[in-house]
Amino acid sequence: MAPSFVPNGGFVAAGKSSSASVTSRLTSVYSEVQTSRIDHDLPLPSVLKRPFKVVDGPRSSAAGHPDEIAKLFPNLFGQPSAMLVPDDSNAELPDQKLKIGVVLSGGQAPGGHNVISGIFDYLQERVKGSTLYGFKGGPAGIMKCKYVELNSDYIYPYRNQGGFDMICSGRDKIETPEQFKQTEDTVTKLDLDGLVVIGGDDSNTNACLLAENFRSKNMKTLVIGCPKTIDGDLKCKEVPTSFGFDTACKIYSEMIGNVMVDARSTGKYYHFVRLMGRAASHITLECALQTHPNITIIGEEVAATKKTLKNVTDYIVNIICKRSEANYNYGVILIPEGLIDFIPEVQHLIAELNEILANDIVDEGGLWKKKLTDQSLKLFEFLPRTIQEQLMLERDPHGNVQVAKIETEKMLIQMVDTELEKRKKEGSYKMEFKGQSHFFGYEGRCGLPTNFDATYCYALGFGAAALIHSGKTGLISSVCASLHTLIIVGNLSAPVEEWTVGGTALTSLMDVERRHGKFKPVIKKAMVELEGPPYKKFASMRDEWALKNHYISPGPIQFTGPGSDAINHTLLLELGVQS
Amino acid sequence: MAPSFVPNGGFVAAGKSSSASVTSRLTSVYSEVQTSRIDHDLPLPSVLKRPFKVVDGPRSSAAGHPDEIAKLFPNLFGQPSAMLVPDDSNAELPDQKLKIGVVLSGGQAPGGHNVISGIFDYLQERVKGSTLYGFKGGPAGIMKCKYVELNSDYIYPYRNQGGFDMICSGRDKIETPEQFKQTEDTVTKLDLDGLVVIGGDDSNTNACLLAENFRSKNMKTLVIGCPKTIDGDLKCKEVPTSFGFDTACKIYSEMIGNVMVDARSTGKYYHFVRLMGRAASHITLECALQTHPNITIIGEEVAATKKTLKNVTDYIVNIICKRSEANYNYGVILIPEGLIDFIPEVQHLIAELNEILANDIVDEGGLWKKKLTDQSLKLFEFLPRTIQEQLMLERDPHGNVQVAKIETEKMLIQMVDTELEKRKKEGSYKMEFKGQSHFFGYEGRCGLPTNFDATYCYALGFGAAALIHSGKTGLISSVCASLHTLIIVGNLSAPVEEWTVGGTALTSLMDVERRHGKFKPVIKKAMVELEGPPYKKFASMRDEWALKNHYISPGPIQFTGPGSDAINHTLLLELGVQS
Repeated sequence: MAPSFVPNGGFVAAGKSSSASVTSRLTSVYSEVQTSRIDHDLPLPSVLKRPFKVVDGPRSSAAGHPDEIAKLFPNLFGQPSAMLVPDDSNAELPDQKLKIGVVLSGGQAPGGHNVISGIFDYLQERVKGSTLYGFKGGPAGIMKCKYVELNSDYIYPYRNQGGFDMICSGRDKIETPEQFKQTEDTVTKLDLDGLVVIGGDDSNTNACLLAENFRSKNMKTLVIGCPKTIDGDLKCKEVPTSFGFDTACKIYSEMIGNVMVDARSTGKYYHFVRLMGRAASHITLECALQTHPNITIIGEEVAATKKTLKNVTDYIVNIICKRSEANYNYGVILIPEGLIDFIPEVQHLIAELNEILANDIVDEGGLWKKKLTDQSLKLFEFLPRTIQEQLMLERDPHGNVQVAKIETEKMLIQMVDTELEKRKKEGSYKMEFKGQSHFFGYEGRCGLPTNFDATYCYALGFGAAALIHSGKTGLISSVCASLHTLIIVGNLSAPVEEWTVGGTALTSLMDVERRHGKFKPVIKKAMVELEGPPYKKFASMRDEWALKNHYISPGPIQFTGPGSDAINHTLLLELGVQS
Repeated sequence: MAPSFVPNGGFVAAGKSSSASVTSRLTSVYSEVQTSRIDHDLPLPSVLKRPFKVVDGPRSSAAGHPDEIAKLFPNLFGQPSAMLVPDDSNAELPDQKLKIGVVLSGGQAPGGHNVISGIFDYLQERVKGSTLYGFKGGPAGIMKCKYVELNSDYIYPYRNQGGFDMICSGRDKIETPEQFKQTEDTVTKLDLDGLVVIGGDDSNTNACLLAENFRSKNMKTLVIGCPKTIDGDLKCKEVPTSFGFDTACKIYSEMIGNVMVDARSTGKYYHFVRLMGRAASHITLECALQTHPNITIIGEEVAATKKTLKNVTDYIVNIICKRSEANYNYGVILIPEGLIDFIPEVQHLIAELNEILANDIVDEGGLWKKKLTDQSLKLFEFLPRTIQEQLMLERDPHGNVQVAKIETEKMLIQMVDTELEKRKKEGSYKMEFKGQSHFFGYEGRCGLPTNFDATYCYALGFGAAALIHSGKTGLISSVCASLHTLIIVGNLSAPVEEWTVGGTALTSLMDVERRHGKFKPVIKKAMVELEGPPYKKFASMRDEWALKNHYISPGPIQFTGPGSDAINHTLLLELGVQS
């Protein structure tokens, strides 16, 4: 069953695959760049290269409602964070073979395969004879006990490669008592010492619930989470970034930079670029910092300042008019995918529409509109016809309006066009507006991980295995730059050696939400902080970017040579390395 | 006015710019990759590094209707192609200073700036004290005598950079007697020895008409063309490829490769990817060869086999059904931008709609549809509602249907969905179809040129200047690999040294078209040849790609290290280097 590497740079299948979707990579021919990445050497933080011990920090609390979190996690609440420190005695770590399971949960993010490689390599180096199982297709694979035993040959073609296809992912959650029972059966059947859950906020909440459950039942299985999401909204002081964010932002920024050069060369289009990131606008903000667009809409700012759709439209139109005075008839505008979700009046309209669509007859003549509140009716009439239709026609299986299907970039183009026509008649705008729409989404989720994400993920995986080896549970693997690194070297990539590795208590990231009369634990999404360094830097520069053209074209991600060690601005600014 | 390079990797403006759109690059901050590219050393074919002379080939003819071409170009018809060969005597070339103008015409293509650098560096090295003028904003800049004198400082920041913003481009044509007169005035005023026209088929036709005109009037200005278009449809035996094609295809293929990995990881989407390329499907074919998608539609094949839209839909649906039997519920499908233009029945429908929209009342009740022929009515009813609306609503200033605005990828998703629903009811399809649409267009036109395009364009520019220096006119700059190179080394990039440089008679590329009762000269677009090696290779592999997943992810364009010397398959196959 082992794949064999063939001289033409490809892999050939070494037998009939048992699962088409999981092992299909083995029949792939690899590109030169893919092939070169497989054998790319990953630097390890020095603490992972030598014997270490785990040192506990002070007792932890919760992100909010510590009393409720304490009730929900009686066995885990208050756990200290753990830090790996060199220890040449190596007395504390057992050399008993380990059995560990790993699962990928939720949407793809570049670097997931490297987390798995990191876990595997740790076991190979430190606890020979151990076993790593990959659960297939996400948490459902745990519940249904669908897994594959991962060995060197199996893992090899996925090293430093994008995607999640080594074991695939899924969006199921382990929630009901039956599902917890299935999970217990699986970890018992496989005799698992540990389980690594690679996922976003929801999946890490789930990981913590599993850890609590196993401990409460005196089961030996330890659970460690890993911070994954290109959206960049799972982070805290000890978890400086979620993996995949760096790669995705660089892929999008390459495209934005190209579009900018095109805009400037052509001189006649406004490009409206919608970027993935539903809940938070980190991706849009980071891409703005990388490329310096003329206009950037940050959802969190729109929400905080209670902007209406008309306000957003006017903001764009005002800049377009000002630019026209400087004889610029082109530009680039970045819009977060989740923009609409940040606008309160749109939320109200959609709620009202859902109500009407569920209970009333929508007549052709439009009498149904009388059921809308004045504010919502005004907004509905303000929307372009095609968007009105999308709102009325596109419904999910529950009959609700599918906000995700609304092409915000096209909607804004139409609204901006309408407003500019008005201003033209008033004489305050004299040019010809032409909008071009773009949506960059799936293209960024599965790219080859950057050197940063590849290295970061490998350390996360190595660290996760080390935490399990050290008997830890309910932690999220965390890899940070040491203060020394930050002050002395000023960037994260060169001194990987000095990265710190540890685990942060998952309960310390949690708050509760009231759902159906009960408190539910949640890891709050990290939104763009309007007082944070990335936003503040952007805010200090955007007026200049709006009227002058300070476009930057980052170019394609490089794996060697100039640019290959670059790290995203958000991380550097939040760590205080960049100003 | 010279830009100055500042240590933080940026350029600062060195004075108030006279034209915002043309000199805005000078106020840009450059990314690390952009900066590193500026000083990237470009290898030159050895013939350009030493003294050379021009050797003429045999008398040429035309691509079609030689008698008519001879009448249209009495001064140029029959010109031999020219080849540069080493000549250490260097006796023939004058050392009188030259004045040359250069213009960028039509859509952007990566490498345009390098052609200009090549011309400039030739003059610097071989005819010191010469002058290079850049006409601003395309051919209109020639007619209006809008130009900038290009010097080292001006050119420097654009070296190896994407876009056309050094002097910008435009789509005007020099057609009327008045416009020819304006052009004569400009070249006389500037005392031009030569003019280099960088453009596609139309622009090179125009270049040839200018050359003929100047010669017929005994004016000294020589005209040389350069083959530019990402679409890859300007080529012939002596002009193996148009520049920009290599870079654009690699940018699109990076994105396609990422989407493939995403498709395989997620396992639940069919991605329909529309790719730029209106007239010919070279880009789609090349991207297919680079990435191995499950389904690829080649416009030329659709036209040759007289496929209907229903045929195309069924072809896709049949493969999706077959894949579902192998338990694959995902895939990637490439569609050329110009697909609709290749389908005869769609052409008929659009012609009828244009007629009806121009002359009749389109009633809400749909009585107008009776004016359609049976075939067109059937097709119209077959189209998804949103596409019907687009056909009726989106019209250009002449009232015609705007075919370019039709989102073919979305149209196909809807048609495939409808057909699959039917098959589901019939029991021949059992899965859940979900389509995701993508359009990759502007993102690829202005990227940083690949090493191949950078080198190729520099040689094209160097060669164009050499041809003017040698007194040649009415030629298109041509750079080829020598037979020796092809046989011995097997790839084009390493032995740039051995590339041949010369010029091909523009009249030899020409045929005539009858327009308004007159013969007009045209350079025929090079379409995908169904007997050519690239198509044949694709056709021999597509059945396997359809059902098995042989996806390749080329990854981002690399400028150093593995993959940085890669050359597109189309060129290698057409040169016989790859099989």
